[in-house]
Amino acid sequence: MRNLKLKIEYDGTNYCGWQVQKGHQLKSIQEVIQKTLQRILQEKIKLIASGRTDAGVHAEGQVANFRTNSKMALEKLQRALNGLLPEDICVAEAREAAADFHSRFAAKSKAYRYTILNRKYPSALLKNAVYFYPYPLDIKIMQREVGVLLGRHNFKAFQASGSITGRTVRTIKRIRILKEGDLIRIDIEADGFLYSIVRNIVGTLIEIGRGKLSPGSLKKILLSKDRKTAGPTAPARGLCLVKVNY
Amino acid sequence: MRNLKLKIEYDGTNYCGWQVQKGHQLKSIQEVIQKTLQRILQEKIKLIASGRTDAGVHAEGQVANFRTNSKMALEKLQRALNGLLPEDICVAEAREAAADFHSRFAAKSKAYRYTILNRKYPSALLKNAVYFYPYPLDIKIMQREVGVLLGRHNFKAFQASGSITGRTVRTIKRIRILKEGDLIRIDIEADGFLYSIVRNIVGTLIEIGRGKLSPGSLKKILLSKDRKTAGPTAPARGLCLVKVNY
Repeated sequence: MRNLKLKIEYDGTNYCGWQVQKGHQLKSIQEVIQKTLQRILQEKIKLIASGRTDAGVHAEGQVANFRTNSKMALEKLQRALNGLLPEDICVAEAREAAADFHSRFAAKSKAYRYTILNRKYPSALLKNAVYFYPYPLDIKIMQREVGVLLGRHNFKAFQASGSITGRTVRTIKRIRILKEGDLIRIDIEADGFLYSIVRNIVGTLIEIGRGKLSPGSLKKILLSKDRKTAGPTAPARGLCLVKVNY
Repeated sequence: MRNLKLKIEYDGTNYCGWQVQKGHQLKSIQEVIQKTLQRILQEKIKLIASGRTDAGVHAEGQVANFRTNSKMALEKLQRALNGLLPEDICVAEAREAAADFHSRFAAKSKAYRYTILNRKYPSALLKNAVYFYPYPLDIKIMQREVGVLLGRHNFKAFQASGSITGRTVRTIKRIRILKEGDLIRIDIEADGFLYSIVRNIVGTLIEIGRGKLSPGSLKKILLSKDRKTAGPTAPARGLCLVKVNY
């Protein structure tokens, strides 16, 4: 049996997220791709991703693998997928993987990017890909503060409230805030991501950039391990899973 | 009476173009903005744009003006518009204009950008903003050829077939082809644009880059003044009105 690995790009706007959600009206990205694979390969397929993404979150480089008996050439499979998938989901790569490769367990780190549109008026062209924030943000203070998150820490303060408490220690390998014109890009690479952690960190950084939280707050919040001290969760639409590293 | 000038950004995907089209199912961008202005200002508004854009064509910097008796502050008007307009249309600027300012007649030049996604697989995230072209394009040949269009010429060969023949002499002030990763951007600034001219030039450049038309073809096509010699019309979704210069 072959184990095939897909690199997937999607616009999450019209989906309930990667995974099937019971009672949710929108389709999941996983089910749409699985059904398309089943239609092409004429066998039951179980698609395993590097991790879930929430409703409205995008991906440039989600990775998912599945086992198949099919002998179809990879290029042909990719073309068939891109021909049959809806336009807001596409397959950037299809590769053979080792028999024991597992998209989630094998992932060494993942990189997310959060994009804020920081100007007085929204963008018609970027509406689904950015969080429009009209108030001035002090990017220098945000850049200075964010360094305290680098390295191995207990990120409990940034985990979604209501999460089942588990291991909340993670290592952030890279975190960077860049301004390009009216866009602020926050890049975070970590060995694992707690539920909503990026959106909670971004929501907190925005409060700092806006002056609602004073310099030094990020460290205090991190050390408090208390979700209530952090800022609000930034909206899903600004978030994109950029890359999964193996 | 005040004469107000708006700078408008829109995603043209879900519209029949700037202007109302009889019998077209989709709304026009003009009618949506006019109705929103009328709702805010409570008077009949006639919105005059720098020029029409076709169904599916986008704008970062369309300019339109209208006359009003309202004394509403510009900032308030802009906020009200951005609050009430659908998310795929927004107002980047609202300014006072001279009493005799006319968005179309006063325009000195306009700049359009056409974006081609040139790789083997489409993009879920950019699907509405680029033309996905999967075959290799020789960008160097395209860049070398395109210079012949610079300056004052009769562009009849690139005017949409079936156009009412009028004056077809225009001046292209700037034309540039850039490659950024998998994206090819073609920027054209001219004193005026014949109907479909950018999409016809791009369609022809693609044929050249693909090797279907030999080097030197662009000059021959230009001199032929015959639409039948040029390449096909590139799709609307890759086109964006970037700026109107006054």
